Amino acid sequence: MIDTVILPLLRQEMRNELELRVGKLQTLMKEESFDGVLIGANVNLFYLSGTIFRGNVYVPKSGEPLYFLISPSISCQKGCVAVRKPEQIASVLMENGQEPPSRLGLEFADMTYSDISRLKACFPNAEYGDVSPLLRKSRSIKTAYEISRMREDGIKHSAVYSMIDKCYRENMTDLEFQIEIERLLRLEGCLGLLRAAGSRMELNLGSLLNGDNADVPSPYDFTMGGRGCDPALPVGADGMTMMPGTTVMIDMNGCFNGYQTDMTRCRMIGDVPELAKKAHECSRRILRSLEKIGVPGTEVSLLYTTAVDIAREEGLHEYFMGHKHKVGFIGHGIGIELNEMPVIMERNNSLLQENMTIAIEPKFVIPHVGAVGVENTYRVTSGGLENLTTFNEEMISLGEGVKE
Amino acid sequence: MIDTVILPLLRQEMRNELELRVGKLQTLMKEESFDGVLIGANVNLFYLSGTIFRGNVYVPKSGEPLYFLISPSISCQKGCVAVRKPEQIASVLMENGQEPPSRLGLEFADMTYSDISRLKACFPNAEYGDVSPLLRKSRSIKTAYEISRMREDGIKHSAVYSMIDKCYRENMTDLEFQIEIERLLRLEGCLGLLRAAGSRMELNLGSLLNGDNADVPSPYDFTMGGRGCDPALPVGADGMTMMPGTTVMIDMNGCFNGYQTDMTRCRMIGDVPELAKKAHECSRRILRSLEKIGVPGTEVSLLYTTAVDIAREEGLHEYFMGHKHKVGFIGHGIGIELNEMPVIMERNNSLLQENMTIAIEPKFVIPHVGAVGVENTYRVTSGGLENLTTFNEEMISLGEGVKE
Repeated sequence: MIDTVILPLLRQEMRNELELRVGKLQTLMKEESFDGVLIGANVNLFYLSGTIFRGNVYVPKSGEPLYFLISPSISCQKGCVAVRKPEQIASVLMENGQEPPSRLGLEFADMTYSDISRLKACFPNAEYGDVSPLLRKSRSIKTAYEISRMREDGIKHSAVYSMIDKCYRENMTDLEFQIEIERLLRLEGCLGLLRAAGSRMELNLGSLLNGDNADVPSPYDFTMGGRGCDPALPVGADGMTMMPGTTVMIDMNGCFNGYQTDMTRCRMIGDVPELAKKAHECSRRILRSLEKIGVPGTEVSLLYTTAVDIAREEGLHEYFMGHKHKVGFIGHGIGIELNEMPVIMERNNSLLQENMTIAIEPKFVIPHVGAVGVENTYRVTSGGLENLTTFNEEMISLGEGVKE
Repeated sequence: MIDTVILPLLRQEMRNELELRVGKLQTLMKEESFDGVLIGANVNLFYLSGTIFRGNVYVPKSGEPLYFLISPSISCQKGCVAVRKPEQIASVLMENGQEPPSRLGLEFADMTYSDISRLKACFPNAEYGDVSPLLRKSRSIKTAYEISRMREDGIKHSAVYSMIDKCYRENMTDLEFQIEIERLLRLEGCLGLLRAAGSRMELNLGSLLNGDNADVPSPYDFTMGGRGCDPALPVGADGMTMMPGTTVMIDMNGCFNGYQTDMTRCRMIGDVPELAKKAHECSRRILRSLEKIGVPGTEVSLLYTTAVDIAREEGLHEYFMGHKHKVGFIGHGIGIELNEMPVIMERNNSLLQENMTIAIEPKFVIPHVGAVGVENTYRVTSGGLENLTTFNEEMISLGEGVKE
């Protein structure tokens, strides 16, 4: 069992890293007067332990966390306690010299109502609060180690995108094209996992949108929609043949190590109308502008309004961030989850902070042609946004121009 | 927008099907004195509408349900009402002649604490109860239409498995083998989606276990474990080369239409010790026995105890359902979610019912060889279990014996 749960905690390097994260969370806990928080959602277990295990993490307002491991994740390592069920946690805390918390934080937005109710019942005398926002806030600013993992994602993600054109064959469907890209991603080490907050983010290994399918709204919280191949998953590729004169938007999964990058590139099937090419270049100009102003202290809303202003100046506003249906954001924090803080939208007046990681995706939907635009994942630095997904952004042509 | 939400509801055939499902749910609601239930989890939205949309379904104790659609899923179709947010639901219900429910069912086990709290606040004078168990009960017995979808899954799932052997090359890693199978699945129409209840069921497109990796416990609620390729997803293939003398257990995703089948087959790399072959044949004998006794009225626990008894009689008990770590069930209901009711375990004394669909997976882990055994998805009929995953169960040899 050593190989699953214990490994990350045993390595001194990882211990230091986890101390850093726990320290950040404890600082935020003080602001909200939490005496302790009890974590159980996979994304936050991963954040606080470096892996997924069956059990919970208790973080007191000061001092070291306690890891409650339920079989088959048994361990007697320092900081870990084996329990059979969550109901034992309160008494084990006391045996370990911890006061029962009078104000306990639980993950209201990341666990089911049943699971939270069960944890509440373990501490009947405590007052409760929602710790999900604090964990999102803590996770929004990455440590050096986390940045290094996302940098690794960006390199692998780019390596796969550099091979995409070779997958194309004439008269392919969008889905066939996507499947070949999925295979390349998986061979490069992509875990094939999409961790995302909320119930509106189901997807398989990514979104590939061709032609007018890009103009079909979907019920999910992605910037782009798509009909999907089945009413059971109405999003993304719809299985139609990719016709000359259309664009393909490739926005595939970038999770190689539990962190992820988000990257979109576009291709033309043959040639496409000037309007689509102009909009694609406009997306790149928007990114260049935002890369400059995206420094610590910038209001998040400024990124959004700057992007909208550029699209409007170029007469492309009616196509910006969707055509039949428009979304109200142009990007999002990213890390363990695809949709982290901050959301890049007009009414977000929070400030960018050093080492936030954000995906920015100024996209256009051109009727009867398809979606165009670029998405990169960035790190916020005092010198502007640092691009972690540096692969070539040009919208080149597939089809006749492509040779083996 | 017609193409996403409305299609299933407009088709008369689907209308009749959904009426059948709503009727089943209403019968169960009466038993628990619910005046109404308000649904928001994707699996149950799909069950009650035939697709995924942004919004909620309200099912009254009698009469037709009302579909609350939040943009971009706008519609003015009969039975559908456009709302901007859930807070409008109560007043819209009254405008449509519905009494506000005095006892309201919400999906405590399928929605986050935050989401349930928000829905509760929309009906401040109601009493609340958990409707998740009723929906699971209703979903556990399939309609003729649902059976036909699962039958289709089984045919496609089998078609892919019939091509697996051709993917094998000597000195492949388990992960490389899995990736080629994933590609075949996707090309056959597999949606690449795993819907499952609870937080302990993360996985990509399936589990492929080779050699001793099958003996590594994982934190997830699958019968088998595996180290995985990264601490971020500690389950399944671990990226090691598949060596002669080991077995490969192939248990890959069977979701082609929102319903799914679960099917496991095994292969030998070269040849393996007799013990492994004997255990594999024992698994098949267990299935043959359970197929006979699995009729409506049989206690679920009898399937479990019969399987354990056969494994014990053949001297294989120490390897049954895991070796270092054993799980306490040999199968599970399956349909929209991978893990539906009933769980096939000793302390489940509920009775099998006609048209329940269950996956049965008597598996063995042989140290230093790997996992062996077969899993099929069955329909419960008065003549015994009908196999929906009829592909050949023999454990044939890959490697030297395999020719193009």
